[in-house]
Amino acid sequence: MRAIDIIIHKRDGAELGPEEIDFLVAGITDGSIPDYQIAAWAMAVVWRGMTIRETALLTLAMAGSGEQLDLEKWAPGAVDKHSTGGVGDKTTLVVEPLVAACGIPVMKMSGRGLGISGGTIDKLESIPGFRTELTPDGILRQLSEIGMVISAQTAELAPADGKLYALRDVTGTVPSLPLIASSIMSKKIASGARAIVLDVKAGTGAFMGTVAEAVVLARWMVRIGSRAGRRTAALVSAMDQPLGFAVGNALEVREALDTLHGAGPADFHGHCLTVAGLMLHLGGRVKNPRLGRALAAEKLADGAALARFRALVRAQGGDERICDDPTLLPAAPFRGILAAQKSGCLVEAHAGKIGRASVQLGAGRAKKGDPIDPGVGIVLSVKVGDSVRKGEPLCEVHAATEPALAQALEELAEAFIVKRDKVKPLPLFYKTIIT
Amino acid sequence: MRAIDIIIHKRDGAELGPEEIDFLVAGITDGSIPDYQIAAWAMAVVWRGMTIRETALLTLAMAGSGEQLDLEKWAPGAVDKHSTGGVGDKTTLVVEPLVAACGIPVMKMSGRGLGISGGTIDKLESIPGFRTELTPDGILRQLSEIGMVISAQTAELAPADGKLYALRDVTGTVPSLPLIASSIMSKKIASGARAIVLDVKAGTGAFMGTVAEAVVLARWMVRIGSRAGRRTAALVSAMDQPLGFAVGNALEVREALDTLHGAGPADFHGHCLTVAGLMLHLGGRVKNPRLGRALAAEKLADGAALARFRALVRAQGGDERICDDPTLLPAAPFRGILAAQKSGCLVEAHAGKIGRASVQLGAGRAKKGDPIDPGVGIVLSVKVGDSVRKGEPLCEVHAATEPALAQALEELAEAFIVKRDKVKPLPLFYKTIIT
Repeated sequence: MRAIDIIIHKRDGAELGPEEIDFLVAGITDGSIPDYQIAAWAMAVVWRGMTIRETALLTLAMAGSGEQLDLEKWAPGAVDKHSTGGVGDKTTLVVEPLVAACGIPVMKMSGRGLGISGGTIDKLESIPGFRTELTPDGILRQLSEIGMVISAQTAELAPADGKLYALRDVTGTVPSLPLIASSIMSKKIASGARAIVLDVKAGTGAFMGTVAEAVVLARWMVRIGSRAGRRTAALVSAMDQPLGFAVGNALEVREALDTLHGAGPADFHGHCLTVAGLMLHLGGRVKNPRLGRALAAEKLADGAALARFRALVRAQGGDERICDDPTLLPAAPFRGILAAQKSGCLVEAHAGKIGRASVQLGAGRAKKGDPIDPGVGIVLSVKVGDSVRKGEPLCEVHAATEPALAQALEELAEAFIVKRDKVKPLPLFYKTIIT
Repeated sequence: MRAIDIIIHKRDGAELGPEEIDFLVAGITDGSIPDYQIAAWAMAVVWRGMTIRETALLTLAMAGSGEQLDLEKWAPGAVDKHSTGGVGDKTTLVVEPLVAACGIPVMKMSGRGLGISGGTIDKLESIPGFRTELTPDGILRQLSEIGMVISAQTAELAPADGKLYALRDVTGTVPSLPLIASSIMSKKIASGARAIVLDVKAGTGAFMGTVAEAVVLARWMVRIGSRAGRRTAALVSAMDQPLGFAVGNALEVREALDTLHGAGPADFHGHCLTVAGLMLHLGGRVKNPRLGRALAAEKLADGAALARFRALVRAQGGDERICDDPTLLPAAPFRGILAAQKSGCLVEAHAGKIGRASVQLGAGRAKKGDPIDPGVGIVLSVKVGDSVRKGEPLCEVHAATEPALAQALEELAEAFIVKRDKVKPLPLFYKTIIT
């Protein structure tokens, strides 16, 4: 078999077979197929697409390209969860302890933030001492001990995906539904959970701009998961405004703690319960997502979820005192308020623009490997649909320097739109897809 | 400017501008753009195509990526000629001395054979002592001395094209009209002639299978040439059966010599006069191609063209005695006849199959750098439209070994079809395109 023939097949619109996909992924993994051939193939895929069968084959081949965790042995019934990323999306920080508190083991490999999407790992690392670089052995041991792990993605899992993604990133071949779906799912499948809940975000602050695109991606990932023998479900959720109020690493940890303490923003609270409910259903803990949501609400209210979060912080070396005293988290020295220029109703809090302002402040990365500042960020005071009076705060900016504060306030003035006419609050979810 | 943005523009179907094309070609030339980005761009071009404006920009940028010969200074009015390649296409060997004999300087950079297409350089190297690796200085000196040069393509001319072609060859990005047209024309333009005649072949033995494809390629190349300020014309000629009788390097030199001596196959003789006539017209020597053809016929008949060929062989170090005694050329030790199995009319002499059989014999290369055997090949006895009787020869095979002879005879039995019904001879030309 030759890589050139595989490229030509795809260029001419053919469906690749299992031997071809396996040859390709083996060649990506061991470097025997040069990058220029992989790049040409990837562009042909952007052009010609892949069938669901091809995409599932690619996903499984990439999942099998390195170590695969055997979660069933260490934590039978574990449920995994993945978000396609958004602004202010600190869901994992609440949902994982919540589900664990309901008796379902959770093992989550998370990423770092890139662009306007925050990363759970960056958020957790704002907790003094918190370790996220765990070995596969360490992950399995902690999982069997406390039923819960949140770890950085290890290089050993799905290495072919890591290499392919890095190449796609520099060859204009990122926007391909089958390549996006297989990249996400290969890591989830290698992570070993038998049940996977996907939170696919749509809106200005998400990778998928429209609900239609997000629904298609969600459907593909659910189908891939099913073909791989995993119980898979997806929520398509709203990302036109940030989720909750806080955007920025330590600020989001603080908001997650508020929520675990029973307070926190209503939208974020509701989002977490719905995601947790679906995970509990998929994990077989309850008969339907509605019962899962109710169970989750109970465990949030009685402090069990907070106790699990505390155990997680302790197990991964973090300073657990932050659970009761969030002032121990890093904080930015300069703060400023963006005030409403007129009275009315907030009709837009543009997640994309707010996300970009937070990256500018140092909460995110423009490119891989950039350092981030855990303390900086933005805290919204109002959400779309809320009334606001002239002079009242729209958000508060937390900055490392005065010029950065001034620049962020200027940029954010573009992100918030107040109008006379009353609008309804934005929806939280658009669709649930369960096989 | 960043390569990734150029890839994305092309991927999204945009027309690239002059700065983008120049940046790309500079990056190909100096290696500053990695191969994987060039490959992704090339596949995007196969997908999205390029406008004639983009293609002309790419051609000029590649032509300008290395040394460019200043032919006007050394050989004012020189005319260049290019064939897209075929089976038995020894046209250059007759046409170049013919045009030179008419007082128009000719400088031709030729290639080596690859696949079923023979290469003029391989043919000339079957002449003992003949040197084809000339320096740019050597080329210009010989041109001013004897008005005629046939040289191997030098690495100094259009190096970006050489690198891009090598990459396209291994990334499935060869079949793209704008990339094919710009590759051919960049070398012609860098070679410096102000007038260029293109012989675009169509048929089973050609790169372009259909006349329609060949006409489109011919039109594009003529338009590119015009945009580059060159007088450019194209002939679309037939390549469903070999041109002339001989296929194989020394065998073709021998047939070219026969033709220069006033004999040779009628189709090849006619083909050479037409190509030469167009070159003489484009070079300003005569008022129209018809007058050019008449002048060429005269110079072929009076021995002036043969004298020029002799001067060429001498100037490039070859043994000029072959001009009068072709038995001094390399010859194969084993010969065998393929005889007609029945009487009738030859309706097909499949150029593709005959070309492949000749490659198998060792006359051509399966891949770059393979050695070739100058003596081997095939000599047809009949052409399409000729009557043939059972037992009469269809062709004679010249082979290096007995097994190779037997194998070729077996393969060639598939290439010749004799039927009861009489068919007309095949046309020589389909179209002439002059701007």
